[in-house]
Amino acid sequence: MGAESTVSNVRYERGMELLRSVGGDSADTVIDGIAEIAPDLARYTVEFGYGDIYHRPGLTLRQRQLANIAALAAMGTAAPQLRFHIDGALNVGVTPAEVVETLIHISVYSGIPAAINGLTVAKTVFADRPESASPVVVAPISPEETLAERHQRGLEALDRIDGEAGHQVVAALADIAPDLAGYIIDFSFGDVYSRPGLDLPTRELVTVAACTALGTAAPQLRVHLHGLLNVGGTRAEAIEVITQMAAYAGFPAALNALTAAREVFAHRDAEGRSE
Amino acid sequence: MGAESTVSNVRYERGMELLRSVGGDSADTVIDGIAEIAPDLARYTVEFGYGDIYHRPGLTLRQRQLANIAALAAMGTAAPQLRFHIDGALNVGVTPAEVVETLIHISVYSGIPAAINGLTVAKTVFADRPESASPVVVAPISPEETLAERHQRGLEALDRIDGEAGHQVVAALADIAPDLAGYIIDFSFGDVYSRPGLDLPTRELVTVAACTALGTAAPQLRVHLHGLLNVGGTRAEAIEVITQMAAYAGFPAALNALTAAREVFAHRDAEGRSE
Amino acid sequence: MGAESTVSNVRYERGMELLRSVGGDSADTVIDGIAEIAPDLARYTVEFGYGDIYHRPGLTLRQRQLANIAALAAMGTAAPQLRFHIDGALNVGVTPAEVVETLIHISVYSGIPAAINGLTVAKTVFADRPESASPVVVAPISPEETLAERHQRGLEALDRIDGEAGHQVVAALADIAPDLAGYIIDFSFGDVYSRPGLDLPTRELVTVAACTALGTAAPQLRVHLHGLLNVGGTRAEAIEVITQMAAYAGFPAALNALTAAREVFAHRDAEGRSE
Repeated sequence: MGAESTVSNVRYERGMELLRSVGGDSADTVIDGIAEIAPDLARYTVEFGYGDIYHRPGLTLRQRQLANIAALAAMGTAAPQLRFHIDGALNVGVTPAEVVETLIHISVYSGIPAAINGLTVAKTVFADRPESASPVVVAPISPEETLAERHQRGLEALDRIDGEAGHQVVAALADIAPDLAGYIIDFSFGDVYSRPGLDLPTRELVTVAACTALGTAAPQLRVHLHGLLNVGGTRAEAIEVITQMAAYAGFPAALNALTAAREVFAHRDAEGRSE
Repeated sequence: MGAESTVSNVRYERGMELLRSVGGDSADTVIDGIAEIAPDLARYTVEFGYGDIYHRPGLTLRQRQLANIAALAAMGTAAPQLRFHIDGALNVGVTPAEVVETLIHISVYSGIPAAINGLTVAKTVFADRPESASPVVVAPISPEETLAERHQRGLEALDRIDGEAGHQVVAALADIAPDLAGYIIDFSFGDVYSRPGLDLPTRELVTVAACTALGTAAPQLRVHLHGLLNVGGTRAEAIEVITQMAAYAGFPAALNALTAAREVFAHRDAEGRSE
Repeated sequence: MGAESTVSNVRYERGMELLRSVGGDSADTVIDGIAEIAPDLARYTVEFGYGDIYHRPGLTLRQRQLANIAALAAMGTAAPQLRFHIDGALNVGVTPAEVVETLIHISVYSGIPAAINGLTVAKTVFADRPESASPVVVAPISPEETLAERHQRGLEALDRIDGEAGHQVVAALADIAPDLAGYIIDFSFGDVYSRPGLDLPTRELVTVAACTALGTAAPQLRVHLHGLLNVGGTRAEAIEVITQMAAYAGFPAALNALTAAREVFAHRDAEGRSE
C-alpha cells in the first residue's frame, strides 16, 4: 500500500468496521460466501453497503437494522440476509421483542405469510443466542374488550398516525368495500399499530422501508410518508431509509419511492408545513 | 372468562373452527410455529384471517382455497403457506386435479417457473395423502390438431372470456409485438384457458387473486375483472377475493386491486350493465 | 403418428431439441419433475417455452440464457430454474465469468441480496462442473484510484449508455436526494457498469430482462430501453427479450414492459432515430 491511503481504502476500512459492528461474529460470512466467486461484489458490499450507506448519519444502526428486517421480510426473497440482519439487530442493541414487533407489523403490508416466514427466520437466530430470551410482548388488551372498543382504538390510532391521508383511504372504500375499511381500522390500526414495543415513528419508518422495497405500494407509501412526518419523523429520515433500500432492494425501488416522497413533501409544503 | 363472552372470543372461536375445517390435522401447525415467539400474531391469524375473512359469506371454502393457491404460487415467496393451503384445499373438497389446474393456470400470470415450483409443493402434499390420487387431467387435444385449429380455439376462448378488453390487448400489440399477441391467443387461451378441470368463473376468480397478490399487473387485473363478470362471476365475488388477499398478500395489494375494480365497475355501469 | 406430422409435434420436436441444447444432461429434469403430476404443463414448457420462444431468431442462445439468469435472480423466487439456466448458459458457450458478471450487474436493479443469492446458486453449478473454473474477473481498478477518478468514470459511463435519460434521472434527484444521485454515478456506473466481462449491449439487454421481470421498475426500464438502443442494441432485440419474459415472469410482465417500449420507441421516432 502506498504511503497515502486512497479514498477507496477509506471506504473499505470504515465499511468493514461497520460490518463488524453489525455482523459481530457473523460479519465475515457476508464476505466469505462470495469472496471466491465474486470478490468485487464482496468489496462493493463492504464499500457501498457499509462504507457509504451504513456510514451515513441521519439514522442510527438500530433504525437501519429494523428497516432492513422489515424490507427483507416483506420482500420474502432474502432469507439469508434477513437472518444476518436480525442477528445484526441484536448486536446493535435492538431487543428480540423489537424484532418480533417489526415482523408482526409487516403483516399489514405484505400479508400474514411474509410475517410468519420472517418470524420463522427470527426463531433460528434467537435459538442460537440463548441470552436473547426476552419477555414476548403480548399487547395489553383485555379479554373483555368489545368490538366497539377495539374499533375506537383503531380510529384513534388511524387519526393520530395517518391523519387526513388515512381517513381518505377509509372514505374511498365506503362505496366498494366498506368491510375492508373496517379491517384497516380494526386490524391494521386497532390490533397492530396500537401495540406497544415499537414507537410510532419507528413503525412508520419500517413501513416506509417495506413499501419502498415492495415496489408495488406507491399509494400506501405516500400515506405512510405522511404518517412518518405526522408522528415526529423527519423528511431527512424518510430520504435516509429510502436511500438505504437502494442497496437492499435495488435502485429502482429507491428511485420510485423518492418520486412518492417528492409528491408528499410538495403537498406538505403547500400546507405550510416544515416537515 | 366472564359469563358474557366477548366478541373477541367469538372471533377466535369461529376462527379456530374454520381453521380446523381447512387445516384438518395440520391446523395447529399454523399456530404452533409462532405461538411461542409471537402469540399475538397467532391470535390475529385465527381472529382476522379465519374469524373475519374466512367467515365471510360470498365465497365458498373451495373458492377461498383455490384463490390462495393461485396467489401464493404466483407470489413465489410463501412455500410453507402454499403447502398448507393445498392440503387445506383437499380437506374442503377441492380435488387434486383442480389444484393442479390452478397451478397450470398461473403459468400465464407469473410465468412457468412459478407454476412448476407450485407443482413441486403440490407433489409433497399429494405424496402425504395417498388417497388423493386422482386421474391427472390431460386436455383432450388431438395429436393431429393443427396450428390453425389451436389458434381458432384460442380466439373463441378469448372472445368468450375477455370480450372487448381482451381483443384490445391483442390489437394493441399489432404494431410492436404481433407474435406475443399470437402467444396470448394460442398458448394462454388456446392451451391453458381452454382446459377442462376448472370452469371459467373459477379460472377468472383465481386470476383476479393472483394479479391482486402480484401487485404488478393492474392492467391485466382490469381485463380479468371484466372477464370474471363476463363469464357469470359477480362484483361481490371480485370484492371478496380481493379482500381475502389483504390477509395473504397485504393491504396494499388489496387496496390497489380495489382501485382497478372501481374503474372496471364504472366502465360497466356506463355500459348499463348490472354486473 | 400419422404419416403427416402435425404442427404440434413439430413444435414439440424442435422444443426438445432446443431444451437439450440448453439443458444438456439436465434437460430431462425439467420434464421429469412435473411429467407425472402435470404432463400438459411439461408439454407446454417444451412447446411454448422452447419450441416457440427459444426457437425464435433475433437473440442467440447465449443472450437468452443471460437474460434468464438476470431475470430469475432479480425475481428471487425461482432458484431451481436459475440453477438450470446457469448450467444451461455454460452449455451454450457462456463463460462462468459472464454468469458472475450478470449476477453482479443485477445488484443495481434488485439489490445486493438478490445478487448474492444468485451467486450462491451459481457456486453450486460451478462446483458440479470442475471444468468450468475460469479466472474470476476482478475489475482492473487501481487501489490508488481516487474518489474523483471513480466519479469521472461513472459520469462517462452514464453518458455513454443512458445519455439524456440518465442525466435526467440524476438531475431530478438534486433537490431531494443528491447523495443517491452520487451513488448512481459512482456505484452503479463507476463500479458496476464500467466492469469488463460483459459488453454494454449485453449489460443493457439483461437490464431490460430484469426490469421486465420485476414489474416494479417501469421508469428504469424506459431509461434502459433507451440505453440498449444507445449502445448498439436494436428495437427487435428489446422486443425479443421482453417476449421471452412472458414465459419466465408471466404475460403481465411482458405486456407492461411493451407499454414502456412503445413509449420509448415513440420518443425516439420523434427525434428522427431509426433505432
